[in-house]
Amino acid sequence: MDREYKLIEYIHNFFNDQKKDLIIGPGDDCAVFKIDKKLLLFTVDEIMEDTHFLMKFSSPSNLASKITRASVSDIYSMGKALPKICLISAGFPSNLSDRWFKEFLMAIKKECSYFNMDLAGGNMVKADKLHIAMTVFGILKGNRIIMRSGAKPGDLLYGIGFMGNAKAGLEILMKRKRKNEVYEKYLIDSFWKPVIFKDESAIISNYATSMLDNSDGLYKSLEIISKINNVKIEVELNEKMAGKYLLKWANNSRRDWREYVINGGEDYNLIFSIRSKYKDLIEKKVPNVYQIGKIEKGNGINIKNWNGKIKNFKHF
Amino acid sequence: MDREYKLIEYIHNFFNDQKKDLIIGPGDDCAVFKIDKKLLLFTVDEIMEDTHFLMKFSSPSNLASKITRASVSDIYSMGKALPKICLISAGFPSNLSDRWFKEFLMAIKKECSYFNMDLAGGNMVKADKLHIAMTVFGILKGNRIIMRSGAKPGDLLYGIGFMGNAKAGLEILMKRKRKNEVYEKYLIDSFWKPVIFKDESAIISNYATSMLDNSDGLYKSLEIISKINNVKIEVELNEKMAGKYLLKWANNSRRDWREYVINGGEDYNLIFSIRSKYKDLIEKKVPNVYQIGKIEKGNGINIKNWNGKIKNFKHF
Repeated sequence: MDREYKLIEYIHNFFNDQKKDLIIGPGDDCAVFKIDKKLLLFTVDEIMEDTHFLMKFSSPSNLASKITRASVSDIYSMGKALPKICLISAGFPSNLSDRWFKEFLMAIKKECSYFNMDLAGGNMVKADKLHIAMTVFGILKGNRIIMRSGAKPGDLLYGIGFMGNAKAGLEILMKRKRKNEVYEKYLIDSFWKPVIFKDESAIISNYATSMLDNSDGLYKSLEIISKINNVKIEVELNEKMAGKYLLKWANNSRRDWREYVINGGEDYNLIFSIRSKYKDLIEKKVPNVYQIGKIEKGNGINIKNWNGKIKNFKHF
Repeated sequence: MDREYKLIEYIHNFFNDQKKDLIIGPGDDCAVFKIDKKLLLFTVDEIMEDTHFLMKFSSPSNLASKITRASVSDIYSMGKALPKICLISAGFPSNLSDRWFKEFLMAIKKECSYFNMDLAGGNMVKADKLHIAMTVFGILKGNRIIMRSGAKPGDLLYGIGFMGNAKAGLEILMKRKRKNEVYEKYLIDSFWKPVIFKDESAIISNYATSMLDNSDGLYKSLEIISKINNVKIEVELNEKMAGKYLLKWANNSRRDWREYVINGGEDYNLIFSIRSKYKDLIEKKVPNVYQIGKIEKGNGINIKNWNGKIKNFKHF
């Protein structure tokens, strides 16, 4: 994983001499391309068998939801934005049945319809292991791009959506015995079909100074914000970040919910900063946001009520 | 392969109720999306280890050229068009060296620069087998979209670029002993770094009634044109289709060049139809085009000087 991050940084530096119409290149949630006065958004994501999912746990509809939401999430994290079309490139093992394909396509269509976009094209290859890559093209409404950079000392850090739920869901999925409690079902659903804040992100975008989708866990997101903006982040964990289902499951199975919030992954909730003067306004306009911490001068991350380990999220 | 074509047809039908701004959805070389008065082009392609290439024969630079050209080719086959940005999603085995990655990125940058586009983003996953998917976004200059449909009885069928060269190149690549002749090198290059007719396609687009890139061999392309346009195609094979290198290799190794032209694949040359009145004009303006045949009323394909077998191209 560390090598991967190094390589990604190398790529960002290597491709930073881009042309004028490519306003944002590799390195943010989306690339932004300007045409006439319109801002176009582009992002690609991929899920891979045995890395992101195991076939025996995965229905075609699960996989369709997961790849669509992972991809579309990046569009909404760039501001007041609408996904428009997607393209899929996938490698399929030859033993998948026609029924499998039909279920998968049906689910992709349903997801596309939910996000009001069209499947515009695709490509199929034969592969030993299933993998599905989705490119999404979206359009920014207006001119306000919310990047990962833009947070300043004095800003407040906020979140919307539960964190650590997908990690807990994955653990439940891997267990042989389940209790079939409502909270188990909710957490598994969070892994396969994460909530995307498509309406809330449009309102948040009026105030956010920076934003990203939390795909690699809170700690990784904090690292990104701190590094890109050259700021210190003071964080205080609170139960709103976990949500009632993770709290209940953690309590019943003797886990520390904070471990899941911090070292989670694949949650796709939004993390954003605002000027402190908008605190009351944002909490009134979008009641399910919660404060994560404060942006301060300096470097690094300080989490007040936690001294556990930082681990990278292991998919499988 | 047959199952793949059936599945693709199913997908085209299943996703044909697209929104108004998606002018062309799945089924042509590119999807076309209309924004204000601009026409945007989208395409995705993928190469997969052990299906499209073997690691032991493939340098990072070979793979970069192949995926870029396979993808960009679809943009030029839609008319007077310019690729603008690309996004890569790739699965990499963990044993690839840093040097491998750097060579790959360097080659991608070089290819992007040749086609005057930028790498806008990407995604990396860990995979047992290497696969590289590239989405290209391009812009149509003007309003003339050249689709696969549009050919009418009375039109003439034309081509530009050699056919069967990639198939021959692949065979040479797989052989232990090579003669190191110029024609061998040329054919191998045709497999890795196919010629893309970026300037010629802009001129051809002024006259073409239909066009596609010949990625699955001449016979498959003829089938597509015949079926989509509901026409009969009369074809006469000629040596211009093969080019001097394939002719020489075929002659020296006792192969029938026509077999390669008809059952080839991964050539990415262009095949297009024109009104017969433009015959002299197109041959004057783009001297390296050649006539393939005639479009007539009826159905099916008739190849005058050939009665061999039709096979689908086997990548590996």
